[in-house]
Amino acid sequence: MKGNLLVAQGGGPTPVINNSLRGVVEEAMKHPEIEGIWAARHGVEGVFKEEFIDMRQESEEDIKGLASTPASAIGSCRRKLCEADYPVLLEIFKKYDIRYFFYNGGNDTMDSCNKISKMAEASGYEMKVIGVPKTIDNDLDLIDHCPGFGSAAKYVGIVGRELALENAALPFQACVMETMGRNAGWLTAAAVLAKKDDDMGPHLIYMPEIAFDKDKFVADVKKIFEKGKGCFIVASEGLRYADGRLIGDTGVKDDFGHTVAGGVAQTLADILIANGIKARSEKPGLIARASIPMQCKQDAEEAYELGAFAVKSAIEGKTGYMASLKRISNEPYKTELELVPLEKVANVEKKFPLEWINEEGNFIKQEFIDYCKPIINEELPSYTVLKKVPVPKR
Amino acid sequence: MKGNLLVAQGGGPTPVINNSLRGVVEEAMKHPEIEGIWAARHGVEGVFKEEFIDMRQESEEDIKGLASTPASAIGSCRRKLCEADYPVLLEIFKKYDIRYFFYNGGNDTMDSCNKISKMAEASGYEMKVIGVPKTIDNDLDLIDHCPGFGSAAKYVGIVGRELALENAALPFQACVMETMGRNAGWLTAAAVLAKKDDDMGPHLIYMPEIAFDKDKFVADVKKIFEKGKGCFIVASEGLRYADGRLIGDTGVKDDFGHTVAGGVAQTLADILIANGIKARSEKPGLIARASIPMQCKQDAEEAYELGAFAVKSAIEGKTGYMASLKRISNEPYKTELELVPLEKVANVEKKFPLEWINEEGNFIKQEFIDYCKPIINEELPSYTVLKKVPVPKR
Repeated sequence: MKGNLLVAQGGGPTPVINNSLRGVVEEAMKHPEIEGIWAARHGVEGVFKEEFIDMRQESEEDIKGLASTPASAIGSCRRKLCEADYPVLLEIFKKYDIRYFFYNGGNDTMDSCNKISKMAEASGYEMKVIGVPKTIDNDLDLIDHCPGFGSAAKYVGIVGRELALENAALPFQACVMETMGRNAGWLTAAAVLAKKDDDMGPHLIYMPEIAFDKDKFVADVKKIFEKGKGCFIVASEGLRYADGRLIGDTGVKDDFGHTVAGGVAQTLADILIANGIKARSEKPGLIARASIPMQCKQDAEEAYELGAFAVKSAIEGKTGYMASLKRISNEPYKTELELVPLEKVANVEKKFPLEWINEEGNFIKQEFIDYCKPIINEELPSYTVLKKVPVPKR
Repeated sequence: MKGNLLVAQGGGPTPVINNSLRGVVEEAMKHPEIEGIWAARHGVEGVFKEEFIDMRQESEEDIKGLASTPASAIGSCRRKLCEADYPVLLEIFKKYDIRYFFYNGGNDTMDSCNKISKMAEASGYEMKVIGVPKTIDNDLDLIDHCPGFGSAAKYVGIVGRELALENAALPFQACVMETMGRNAGWLTAAAVLAKKDDDMGPHLIYMPEIAFDKDKFVADVKKIFEKGKGCFIVASEGLRYADGRLIGDTGVKDDFGHTVAGGVAQTLADILIANGIKARSEKPGLIARASIPMQCKQDAEEAYELGAFAVKSAIEGKTGYMASLKRISNEPYKTELELVPLEKVANVEKKFPLEWINEEGNFIKQEFIDYCKPIINEELPSYTVLKKVPVPKR
């Protein structure tokens, strides 16, 4: 069917989100039935404002450069759609003869996508809608892992290892690193990849799935500290007390009504300081989802393929699906592309398996490593650990 | 003179500190008069405890691997020496026939180095002492720039640019990034390298040299915000109010009696939130001094050369100096190695030139860029900024 294509990005970016955009654009160029190849400025906000940019006017070089461009190259938004919004959107889609719509995002985005697809169908307007997944949180259902997670997990693994070595070099203090991930601890768990041997950190990993207990935390750290090798701790920004209060509550709510978490690492460091343990905090935060030098090659490829696959599927007449990845084998790592119904993905949060967390609730088990390693599919940088043969004392 | 060599690392590491260690070790191996090539565990702490490791027992591969090893490979310390310590140290140096001593560190380390050198001379014990400079803070005097600064500045430039793009993609909030640097804003200033054009951040850079004014800060941010492109702010961990209080005072003092700063970015974000501006904070902190993927090639080479030059100078009979770098020309960038007296470097802090800060006290001038760019001597990664040709409205 002849018509225009619109692509949009929603929510927070990933280190590979723009490569999905590139996948959509480059694939679209192969299909003569697609006339305008347009991108919405700042997600659905750009649809409401009718702010579209013409991707055919961009140079081939700039389109290729999207592969290594951080943030959302076309802008993103966090607008939660309400029922009254859908008819407005539909009129705009009709006015601009948009027949292909691709929305790249996470749970909230897939929900919007699902409703747009349903609404178009119900009104008899022929428009193919495919969701393109992305989130460093890795909490989308019916997909082996989300594009963006591999790169962010690699970042947490590398930076975790570097901070663990830092902590071991000056082992008189504790160091707390905060990771992103509102409700699901997937990215926090990736810190386990940093660990090279028993002595070296991370020594403790606190997941949002386990209620935080202040006394247990202090006792955990003291136990590690006694060994004289410092203590390196990784904690999720979404950590909560048993009563549901966020440890690092900023008091701010985002447009979806979610409370904005922040300052968990500093709060934990403050708890340690108050208990006589020198501590400092690190909050790489957004950098994990923006770092192009740490981008994972396979992740970038998958992000591209999912964008291209979404376009191919729409051209074949599919609508109301999310482009997805299914793992076929672990060794060698192999996936295949498939479509999953948007209505099954929308607003569902893929939980981190509780059985992958140790009994103490402060570390991650081998099962997660087995799941995660093929996703990154690269060795983390190996550093020199000196043998340290002692000079005989005189 | 025949005898043993001892090398130690003091203070916080840099991304290239272990390449200076490699320079010392590899150069020492060329000189038959040097018998034992030893490294002290955790700086002078290892000297007091007589904990030395035999670097000749390490494999060639591991020594080479020091070039890409974060943190202090032999361990570091923050011990401030007092007068009573020096005779104890001297006895240990004598007992182990240590005739060459190299201490790799910053201001405090150069002070220790100077006193050890003086004490040896005064007692008639022949020992060559050369300080090897390092600090991401770049605040050592009589050196063009400190090894470690180039890599950390590159990190701040790259990460600053990534976060600026992040902030522009979701331009409804402010983002504050915190950088290290207790008293001198050299590393904070490097954030200016992140800026690509007028619109894009960093929009505001707050240096420890300028007293922080809360009302002015909120007004500054509001002014940027009105332009609708978000606001990306970079602030030094050492930021102080006019009365000298640290913005991010943790209440903790280190072993040198310096107050430990922390949480400036979160504090600034909290100020903005209280003034109705959505804000979040990022604190890459230690990562800037540990990130090997972001290491600057020229910085690594200079760190190596300074380590090797220290050994060559000692072999030539020099003592009581710091190995230093003098800039000969800017284009092409050229430096030469030289020795500067330790007593002139010890405890002197090279201040950031106030005339390189703009009149408003919230940004950095071209003069710093001209100074800093040749130190990194690499282009920061270039990202796609789409032309964004609008689709005509219907």
